Amino acid sequence: MLDVCLLGTGGMMPLPYRKLTALMTRFNGSNLLIDCGEGTQVAIREKGWSFHDIDVICFTHFHADHISGLPGTLLTMGNAERTRPLLMIGPKGLERVVNALRVIAPELPFPIEFHELSHREETIRVNGYRIHAFRVQHNVTCYGYSLEIERQGRFDVDRAREAEIPQKYWSRLQKGEVIEDGDRTLTADMVLGPPRRGIKVTYCTDTRPTQRIEDCARGSDLFVCEGMYAEKDKEAKARQYKHMTFAEAARLAAAAGVSELWLTHFSPSLSHGENYMRDVKKIFPRASLGTDGRSVELDFIDE
Amino acid sequence: MLDVCLLGTGGMMPLPYRKLTALMTRFNGSNLLIDCGEGTQVAIREKGWSFHDIDVICFTHFHADHISGLPGTLLTMGNAERTRPLLMIGPKGLERVVNALRVIAPELPFPIEFHELSHREETIRVNGYRIHAFRVQHNVTCYGYSLEIERQGRFDVDRAREAEIPQKYWSRLQKGEVIEDGDRTLTADMVLGPPRRGIKVTYCTDTRPTQRIEDCARGSDLFVCEGMYAEKDKEAKARQYKHMTFAEAARLAAAAGVSELWLTHFSPSLSHGENYMRDVKKIFPRASLGTDGRSVELDFIDE
Repeated sequence: MLDVCLLGTGGMMPLPYRKLTALMTRFNGSNLLIDCGEGTQVAIREKGWSFHDIDVICFTHFHADHISGLPGTLLTMGNAERTRPLLMIGPKGLERVVNALRVIAPELPFPIEFHELSHREETIRVNGYRIHAFRVQHNVTCYGYSLEIERQGRFDVDRAREAEIPQKYWSRLQKGEVIEDGDRTLTADMVLGPPRRGIKVTYCTDTRPTQRIEDCARGSDLFVCEGMYAEKDKEAKARQYKHMTFAEAARLAAAAGVSELWLTHFSPSLSHGENYMRDVKKIFPRASLGTDGRSVELDFIDE
Repeated sequence: MLDVCLLGTGGMMPLPYRKLTALMTRFNGSNLLIDCGEGTQVAIREKGWSFHDIDVICFTHFHADHISGLPGTLLTMGNAERTRPLLMIGPKGLERVVNALRVIAPELPFPIEFHELSHREETIRVNGYRIHAFRVQHNVTCYGYSLEIERQGRFDVDRAREAEIPQKYWSRLQKGEVIEDGDRTLTADMVLGPPRRGIKVTYCTDTRPTQRIEDCARGSDLFVCEGMYAEKDKEAKARQYKHMTFAEAARLAAAAGVSELWLTHFSPSLSHGENYMRDVKKIFPRASLGTDGRSVELDFIDE
């Protein structure tokens, strides 16, 4: 099961009634955070999720509303007695930016490991997460992220028998163990059917809609996508500042065939986003407004 | 009139129900901020006070809970179309720390001027404020601030006549104008009585109680002072981490003869501070708990 929480839904600046956009997930005791704006730590605390178990922080880009809360969050993680290394993933310059911000958080009880994205797309596997980072189109280098929890195939008795694998090894192989049996090396793929559908969440902000977002989001159970502007007459503004309108996000969701779309990263000038949702749902019926702290538990689906 | 708002009352980390400690004042269209933690800009917005008119930001010290909100606040000030210079006052290293944090706020539409405090006490006059910075006793270099609005003496008809100053100049001199009249230079002090009592606010965190705080706070209309811990058995902890208990702050307020004490900078572990106030008021009856967004209008008092 993957728990997903949209910690905030604002863009540009935190507001009294709207926290900055960030996403947190929990899987198998390992938490992952995407972006960390001013106040993100308060949103995590409101939700009651663990600081201690944040193992990975991914950054879309280095605009302040996506990273300004980092020094405080690191100190709070330290205060939660975290000692395990923290992995940070983000665009080139990550280490420089983080170290500059750490002028006010120089001492932490855990080490930080940096993974700077140097290609247009990269896949990183950590703690059961398959993290796929892909370049999006903003006015600075910016990445979207697909988080996948992969699911192995069913145990296939016929295959196991055909391969003449002793029954005593079946359970261990199914759990992924590699077993040396005489001169043979036995592996999970010898007893399993094809991989089954896993869980997939795609997170995308700040960006114009692009074909690669559509490709990377394809088949997501949840697509969290920016919709900076709602009004139809803001499309020119969205193009100018490299953001999206609700309608553009909905068209992307429809094209990518995702199960659900949550809109987020609203302009401070946007209020009453619900007034625009009737038109948005005409484009993609499973679209809805993100709200601060909105969460969902995503399970494996048997097909 | 001086408007004073205690924007938050927390120490160490922002909490859902308690913002980080910071103070804002408004005088004659010029706003002043002391400290700027993560979420301070949200507190300012909740209060509805102007970002555009923040002319001075004073920092007590560079622990994250006192400065982590700066980059976001600077961007929000820029977004409010501020173009006038901003004066920052703080301990040595101010420019280096601020410039490091500005890695995520590199472009602002207004210049920043730095005043690094290099003495144990310094007085800076700006926009009608007399700012007196004084060293306090924390585990890093830390300053308290007294803000004073000075009040000139009453117009003294007898003095003006004795000095043979033509009546046509009286009003202009009273307003502070310097007038050349033939071979004489006429100034305000020739027509005014002794300065009258002004308005004084003293702000002190993070620190142990000291004699200099008592001296500098003397006669304040409002003394905003840290009380990190409430419980009597936390005195050793307060000494260890260079903070104060409620009782220590109250003794300081009593000794300094201030009109009113607001406690602030509460430990995240402190809840129900009101339970401790009966004992605190025995030490200093005009003590009360600060609350997020609490404000007061201080007027000149005719004696």
